[in-house]
Amino acid sequence: MTVRYDGTAYHGWQEQPGLPTVQGTLADALAPLLGHRPAVDGAGRTDAGVHALGQVAAFSTQRDIAPGRIQAALNSRLPDDIAVAEVTDVPEAFDPTRDAAGKHYRYRLWRSEAKPLFAARYVWHWHRPLDLGPMRDAAARLVGTHDFKSLESRGNRRATTVRTLFRVDVAEADPPEVHVDVEGDGFLYRMVRNLVGTLVEVGRGHRPPQWVDEVLAARDRTAAGPCAPPQGLCLMSVTYE
Amino acid sequence: MTVRYDGTAYHGWQEQPGLPTVQGTLADALAPLLGHRPAVDGAGRTDAGVHALGQVAAFSTQRDIAPGRIQAALNSRLPDDIAVAEVTDVPEAFDPTRDAAGKHYRYRLWRSEAKPLFAARYVWHWHRPLDLGPMRDAAARLVGTHDFKSLESRGNRRATTVRTLFRVDVAEADPPEVHVDVEGDGFLYRMVRNLVGTLVEVGRGHRPPQWVDEVLAARDRTAAGPCAPPQGLCLMSVTYE
Repeated sequence: MTVRYDGTAYHGWQEQPGLPTVQGTLADALAPLLGHRPAVDGAGRTDAGVHALGQVAAFSTQRDIAPGRIQAALNSRLPDDIAVAEVTDVPEAFDPTRDAAGKHYRYRLWRSEAKPLFAARYVWHWHRPLDLGPMRDAAARLVGTHDFKSLESRGNRRATTVRTLFRVDVAEADPPEVHVDVEGDGFLYRMVRNLVGTLVEVGRGHRPPQWVDEVLAARDRTAAGPCAPPQGLCLMSVTYE
Repeated sequence: MTVRYDGTAYHGWQEQPGLPTVQGTLADALAPLLGHRPAVDGAGRTDAGVHALGQVAAFSTQRDIAPGRIQAALNSRLPDDIAVAEVTDVPEAFDPTRDAAGKHYRYRLWRSEAKPLFAARYVWHWHRPLDLGPMRDAAARLVGTHDFKSLESRGNRRATTVRTLFRVDVAEADPPEVHVDVEGDGFLYRMVRNLVGTLVEVGRGHRPPQWVDEVLAARDRTAAGPCAPPQGLCLMSVTYE
């Protein structure tokens, strides 16, 4: 399934007892269709308040129901802030997390003194000056294969902290918005938000672009910038071979 | 003051004891600046869930504070979903309601089977077909000076139910959105939402365009279509001589 959601009302993707989560809401909506409550695996475990336009999730069932019927029934059962954009059959062995070849995240900054109002749930409001030239210089230093341990928050530690970023683009889009588009083969816990918080330290003039080289070399979370708030982040798409 | 707000979290404009309202929130934010809690008059009493990009509100004070300072202090005190776009001095006799020469409301319909997701708080989701040609024909019949009693909900009854609409435009905008733009010299209680609910009866094919002539002639709310939900409505601007 390709799943889109407004994460504002959810305690993130991952199911937690007694709390509204996207994974739990999908499993609840699938249960009456399938006759059993399935385990729903997602490609990215988005945090509370983070959104998705292209989350990929999978479940297994013995029931023979056409994908189109599952999609229609799910959308009518799901609340307004979760939508299923596509449902397709996949081989039993498909694992949306392990099989992902790449993910694209977008982080939306609102660079204006004026309040974002209708966009408030989807942007980080940045009141002060932010210079995109140095941010782009810093962003270019993050592209490629690096040890991103400095951009990993405590939580789900992984065996290796080496990842490859295919692109980190900083662009003006829908003024007064600035979008940071990050694509890579995999991401550490809160890596995109820590990356954006680090680029903003450069954009506001607190650090020069080459500082990010030191950040990476330190392999220490405290060497990097602060974690950007969750509501600016959106999982745009997941790609598979 | 020109005031913008996301009405989702408020029980409408008008102050009500113990409930969050836009008027009450503005008065609370002004109180520490002025040294007294002012009466804040607004040009339009928007309902719960209705938004504004150009509400006009006024208050009186003996304090000599520059408008620019009031604006900056207010915006820092107000929550993220209310913003003050402009503050200017006006003559003591200025009444934002009585002096208004016209108001512009926009109603946003989301005409698609796909869920609006990030726009859900700002549109009416219309899943079924909606034919804009007949809606435009019906809309043209509402322009001009008419007795709009059939489009007035029970509540704040006015002395006269005759009003003049300068335009009622139905247009595709930001697909899959359809915008109904209504400008007039004054509006009855829930008039725009009742007008949109009536146009949708035509657009969905339940009624022909000329039915709206009967609706107006009936001078009876039950002759018109249903009231469109609040979240699609936004007060765009108020004009003064």
